[in-house]
Amino acid sequence: MKVLVDAFGGDNAPLEIIKGSLLALEEHKDLIIELFGDEDIIKKVLAEVIEESKSNKFFSNKKIDRDELCSRILISDAKEVISCDEAPVVAVKTKKDSSLVKAVDKLKNDEESVGLVSAGSTGAVLTAGFLKLGRIRGIKRPALAPALPTINGKQVLVIDCGANMDCDEYNLLQFAQMGNAYMKIVLGVENPRIALLSVGVEDAKGNELTKKVFALLKESNLNFVGNMEARDALSGDYDVIVCDGFAGNVLIKSVEGTAQLLMSVMKKGFLKNLKTKVGAVLLKGAIKDMKSMLDYHSFGGSPFLGAKKLIIKSHGSSKAKSIHASINQVVTFTENKLIENIEKAIAVEDDND
Amino acid sequence: MKVLVDAFGGDNAPLEIIKGSLLALEEHKDLIIELFGDEDIIKKVLAEVIEESKSNKFFSNKKIDRDELCSRILISDAKEVISCDEAPVVAVKTKKDSSLVKAVDKLKNDEESVGLVSAGSTGAVLTAGFLKLGRIRGIKRPALAPALPTINGKQVLVIDCGANMDCDEYNLLQFAQMGNAYMKIVLGVENPRIALLSVGVEDAKGNELTKKVFALLKESNLNFVGNMEARDALSGDYDVIVCDGFAGNVLIKSVEGTAQLLMSVMKKGFLKNLKTKVGAVLLKGAIKDMKSMLDYHSFGGSPFLGAKKLIIKSHGSSKAKSIHASINQVVTFTENKLIENIEKAIAVEDDND
Repeated sequence: MKVLVDAFGGDNAPLEIIKGSLLALEEHKDLIIELFGDEDIIKKVLAEVIEESKSNKFFSNKKIDRDELCSRILISDAKEVISCDEAPVVAVKTKKDSSLVKAVDKLKNDEESVGLVSAGSTGAVLTAGFLKLGRIRGIKRPALAPALPTINGKQVLVIDCGANMDCDEYNLLQFAQMGNAYMKIVLGVENPRIALLSVGVEDAKGNELTKKVFALLKESNLNFVGNMEARDALSGDYDVIVCDGFAGNVLIKSVEGTAQLLMSVMKKGFLKNLKTKVGAVLLKGAIKDMKSMLDYHSFGGSPFLGAKKLIIKSHGSSKAKSIHASINQVVTFTENKLIENIEKAIAVEDDND
Repeated sequence: MKVLVDAFGGDNAPLEIIKGSLLALEEHKDLIIELFGDEDIIKKVLAEVIEESKSNKFFSNKKIDRDELCSRILISDAKEVISCDEAPVVAVKTKKDSSLVKAVDKLKNDEESVGLVSAGSTGAVLTAGFLKLGRIRGIKRPALAPALPTINGKQVLVIDCGANMDCDEYNLLQFAQMGNAYMKIVLGVENPRIALLSVGVEDAKGNELTKKVFALLKESNLNFVGNMEARDALSGDYDVIVCDGFAGNVLIKSVEGTAQLLMSVMKKGFLKNLKTKVGAVLLKGAIKDMKSMLDYHSFGGSPFLGAKKLIIKSHGSSKAKSIHASINQVVTFTENKLIENIEKAIAVEDDND
């Protein structure tokens, strides 16, 4: 199985991207990774990481065959990089020699390549995916769908989180169908509870768009459990939260921001004096549990559901662990035939119309 | 100064509402409070609280003249209550003998009454305010504008947080103008930094609505600092966050929900075993600081800016402390002539057009 990786996307590229790729190659024996970016730099960094790994605990298996591992790495030279400050459409259209555009072109044209991981500009990744790769038959708008950790140790999929700023009700119905397929296939949830992001749980609450979506979801074959409020996003009461890309983006970013803020306030309080420092040592385990509960990057990145092939948008601040997890997602989704299943789910719904 | 209080709105009515009113009466010697609700119950609860206060620390001043305090309480009998499950427009139109509708009618018709506090159904409070009270001249849509605590110990006003689900760009421009006036007048911020809630900080980011608003704000006389992301809402980098009522509602509810969730996860971790319990005791102060930072109800409720008179929507779960703080808001806003100042700000902007 071949997975493409944008080695020059994200705040910590290329070092952490290369490290994450190596960890994925260690885990999956039949995985091939093609790295996109400046070939000289990639080779140099790769050699350094491999060399350092001989004296640290980078690989789980100390006796790993490093040459075999490296033999499963391909490199495609790409001299340009698309930054987060660039207008996505312009960047994708003009920077033909960028790591991202080259990777998406390869994904489109190479049958062996099953998916792409990039921690680069979200706008550029989505634009390249949308313009070049095409959509699953029947899907009008692919959507970005990250999974968040819930308080009961499970996950909730929020779809869309930023691919589509302005949507109509039929777009959101398809987001619900894709989210439903994802939860069934990837996480084995038998009858996913689909909720609509609104401003109250009552049926009549919401804006013009959500009221129309509510009616469509109610008529659908999905297990629609009604409107939900942002405050209950992580309650574990829902498997899929359906929303337009603007509202979804506000939701996940405020969850993320509030969690980070609280952790930093807590840290400051814990370092206040000797007494609090001792207290913090005693609570080390509990704090670690809390941190790992919040660390949703360990799940990987956000799949761009509805695109013709798998694209995982990894967080811009991704380190090796997230990149590794994102590559794992491509592997799992491929094994589960996620794309084929989404296509089937959409086709079935269409037949029922 | 006379303030009207809906004694039967909220989860903890009437007990906590009456308690909060008494605390406000203790603080402000020239304050008169008119309570709306079932007169018999109010009298009974009031008598009980007053009796109990003789043997507990309810009032700061132990020697307070309880008779004088009670002489500043008026009661308007109202037998009906509007619940959160009712459709706001229907409820406001049909329940003419409800505590909320009677209070809003009084606010409208009584010159002496300067404002109203209610912890009842947000929809009903906003509907009653909008339909019955009318708007400040020039304001198209009043907006709900809670202040959230920021990490640097200040406040940020989020406007609108749920009064207007579907807005146009001129509505949001007015929200910005009202938020600007509020921050200047109530919190003394000289040149409030106005930001637009979007999905990225770059100028071009956003949906159709925010792009139009961006252009208007850029042309305005306001200190517009550009787009902002939900993750930075509490960073202290902004004084006013402008958004439509749907997005604002998602923002504040996910901040609130995430904070509550983290506190509960933390609490669970801290009670895990003896070691963690000892640690928690040592960190008591730090945890208390964190809790009080998050306790934005201590600021009071959300003003419904743009209405002709002051309406404060206190949180549904308000206890005495929040009701007291909400009444304090009415007192402060009246002293600061907030309404007149908003009217002036809007008129000035109109003149500049």
